[in-house]
Amino acid sequence: MPRGPEELRALVEDYLDDLALTPELGTLAEPIRHALGGKRVRPVLCLAAGEAAGAEVESVLPAAAAVELVHSFSLVHDDLPALDNDTERRGRPTVWAAYGEATAVLAGDALLAEAMRLSLSYPTPDVARELVSATLGMIGGQQLDLTDRHDDLAALHALKTGALFSASVMCGLWAAGLPPAEHPPWRAFAAELGLLFQIVDDILDGDGYVVEVGAEDARRLADEAGDRALARLGAIDADTSALTEIVAGLVARTS
Amino acid sequence: MPRGPEELRALVEDYLDDLALTPELGTLAEPIRHALGGKRVRPVLCLAAGEAAGAEVESVLPAAAAVELVHSFSLVHDDLPALDNDTERRGRPTVWAAYGEATAVLAGDALLAEAMRLSLSYPTPDVARELVSATLGMIGGQQLDLTDRHDDLAALHALKTGALFSASVMCGLWAAGLPPAEHPPWRAFAAELGLLFQIVDDILDGDGYVVEVGAEDARRLADEAGDRALARLGAIDADTSALTEIVAGLVARTS
Repeated sequence: MPRGPEELRALVEDYLDDLALTPELGTLAEPIRHALGGKRVRPVLCLAAGEAAGAEVESVLPAAAAVELVHSFSLVHDDLPALDNDTERRGRPTVWAAYGEATAVLAGDALLAEAMRLSLSYPTPDVARELVSATLGMIGGQQLDLTDRHDDLAALHALKTGALFSASVMCGLWAAGLPPAEHPPWRAFAAELGLLFQIVDDILDGDGYVVEVGAEDARRLADEAGDRALARLGAIDADTSALTEIVAGLVARTS
Repeated sequence: MPRGPEELRALVEDYLDDLALTPELGTLAEPIRHALGGKRVRPVLCLAAGEAAGAEVESVLPAAAAVELVHSFSLVHDDLPALDNDTERRGRPTVWAAYGEATAVLAGDALLAEAMRLSLSYPTPDVARELVSATLGMIGGQQLDLTDRHDDLAALHALKTGALFSASVMCGLWAAGLPPAEHPPWRAFAAELGLLFQIVDDILDGDGYVVEVGAEDARRLADEAGDRALARLGAIDADTSALTEIVAGLVARTS
């Protein structure tokens, strides 16, 4: 019986709380820890996928934390004055608002490099390769967002959000040592999940898909993506009950 | 007979010119290529070390390019207005001055992620681990420089410059598959080389060591570091003639 999302989330929190940062980062430790708030959606997904693929969940924790650090890296840089100029996130000052712009640039860099270090703690380069590929997609998505805001929303979201969502699942599988021949149905599941997350995000924020297609159709698209994600999950020969619970939570989330 | 530094430099230039960037980076390709100027000191060192350790030099090129991209990443972010606020580098506008701050933040991020991708093209994670470790040191060094400028110059330089210099040598060895048991004399050589490079840099810029100990003593320290680097090289059982030439070039450099 795999662990449920709440139990996985508690494991992620404990792992991040105890995470030993590279000592040479010195005074960047505080802004880095400041940046590491959040709902842990991606690392929980990573752990659930790894456990469904047969891993001891503890062995997947470095991969899960790496995914979360990449997510935090992107937020710290996106919040900068030159980019989204956000002063608040999750009810607290953003890193640049609290520690200054220079430190926020370096703290973001450090989060990405620490994520790479964690993803390189496995014997093979697979987890790190998957994560780097998603990171490159995210960076490209952010650039696209800065330059051509409303051109192709689906492609933009696939890069900005979908890439790291998909990588969360795939990093769990690589950490579990699942042979690549068994990856395709998982990748299909991960892609639907990324889309689902983004549409629900837009519904909650009243932007993106809501502006594009209207609130009602956005809700319908989200529900359809959720149904497809569950159908993909049903086609995988593993105990995916924790993942089913995560999908249901993403469809129904209100924050 | 190993290739000389100039021949290695030409190989690096060709490799970087032909380097296929991740397509998803889109319009970041131009600022990334803009950022990739420079003397290629680190990638040439990487290739020379790899060749001395027995590799076909072509197989070391991805590692050498990865080192150069990490160097460029650090310059692009350090030049930002919030950090060093430099508008010119190598006689051309810096990335932020040419393309704006937001693009410079993202181009720096992309350079780091592309460096990781290149370093992950090897069958083992060793090159990537070495490079990530140096990157974390550099970021910590930059933060130290921002926060406590004149506290411990040697420690600061060891992080800011020495770490990536040392990694240039070590990445060449990992790419060559040199067994870790044979690394220690190389690591000692690499450490001296990083110190040498930094002292000569300060002599050329009239800062750092020159301010700390005076011009004459800085020159003496540079020559001593050069002598120790050559002595370390003499203790390595390999044809290190290209590296000897690189050390001589670093001692004598005037730009």
